[in-house]
Amino acid sequence: MQLIYKGKTKDVYNLGNSQYLLKFKDDVTGENGVFDPGANTVGLTIDGAGKSGLKMTKYFYELLNDLNIPTHLVSVNLDEVSMVVKEAEVLGKGLEVICRYKAVGSFYRRYAAYCQEGQDLNGFVEVTIKDDERGDPVISEDALENLGILTKDLYQELKALTVKICDIVKAELAKKGLDLYDIKLEFGYDKTNNQIILIDEISGGNMRVYKNGQYIAPLDLEKEFLA
Amino acid sequence: MQLIYKGKTKDVYNLGNSQYLLKFKDDVTGENGVFDPGANTVGLTIDGAGKSGLKMTKYFYELLNDLNIPTHLVSVNLDEVSMVVKEAEVLGKGLEVICRYKAVGSFYRRYAAYCQEGQDLNGFVEVTIKDDERGDPVISEDALENLGILTKDLYQELKALTVKICDIVKAELAKKGLDLYDIKLEFGYDKTNNQIILIDEISGGNMRVYKNGQYIAPLDLEKEFLA
Repeated sequence: MQLIYKGKTKDVYNLGNSQYLLKFKDDVTGENGVFDPGANTVGLTIDGAGKSGLKMTKYFYELLNDLNIPTHLVSVNLDEVSMVVKEAEVLGKGLEVICRYKAVGSFYRRYAAYCQEGQDLNGFVEVTIKDDERGDPVISEDALENLGILTKDLYQELKALTVKICDIVKAELAKKGLDLYDIKLEFGYDKTNNQIILIDEISGGNMRVYKNGQYIAPLDLEKEFLA
Repeated sequence: MQLIYKGKTKDVYNLGNSQYLLKFKDDVTGENGVFDPGANTVGLTIDGAGKSGLKMTKYFYELLNDLNIPTHLVSVNLDEVSMVVKEAEVLGKGLEVICRYKAVGSFYRRYAAYCQEGQDLNGFVEVTIKDDERGDPVISEDALENLGILTKDLYQELKALTVKICDIVKAELAKKGLDLYDIKLEFGYDKTNNQIILIDEISGGNMRVYKNGQYIAPLDLEKEFLA
């Protein structure tokens, strides 16, 4: 089993046969000792953070697979805090697709001249480039096409798929009285058939969730949601 | 004649009868004493800068009016370095529409992971919010719609009009061996008929122009172009 990438929150091993193993770590992104899914730096280590993220991911990815929405999930091993996934090629050099239900985080920081914090955004989708050095800049449909990253058709497919997935996640959270404010997804091309599939994870680490107007930190979210 | 707004590079007076007077000043945007059309701060004063900008604006706006492209131009008084314009309501709280032929400036700074400096962008259009405090953030077609700033139809109209105008400016410059790399425009609603019209100015101060691969500073541009 060959380590091929050490990520901020996961290590990736090549298993051969077009499969990879993701080993979830207890390192979380944040700044000044506070877990912040929107941050780019690994701020701290929290015992159990990796397993917490994997349990959420297992829940959502199994649900999506049951609903015939293609994901990279093959199997989960909670004891070893790892997940076997299909080999996928990332879009461009790595894009994040954000679905926003409320104006918070970087959206609010950018567009505060035109919105109130927490205002409804009704599943607005935007794409950012994974580029820590340049602060993960947003990029438009036209720019993605112009730079040869995504065709217009692919952009529309991605946007529709994002809304479909995020609406499911939102509805699941709502069953426990939890409000999804925003969430970021990653997609890739399945190497075996070139189909677009959901990759990476869905956990507290890539969403902002509130309960009765109060922000719920990622690890508390897992406890509330999977209780 | 009532002063109603002191801008960074122009003062605005209300003339009544739905007309305004723009008084071009010798203040230019820039940083560290260098004229930079992309900057948000007024960096220095250059004798003749106002008149230079007005001469370019007169040239392009008269040409556009001749081509039946609606602008806010009523008349120009070069001796008084002023321009009478139609009253217009800005889009949102002020938007800039940028047309890019080459990847330079803020586009290159954002997307350097996916492009070479100076790469062809073929008239790519993007919109930024005029918001000095937040660094004039770019905003997508979807976000403009979501925040109630522009409908999709209006966005498409604006984009087509921008490309049409900028292609004309590019062709005019090319006649003098000058290459337009990027340019920013402003539009507004004509108060008399609600039609979208080009407002503000077109001068060295809102474009980047090169000659034989060398950047031409705004005041040198006017001298080369109108020689």
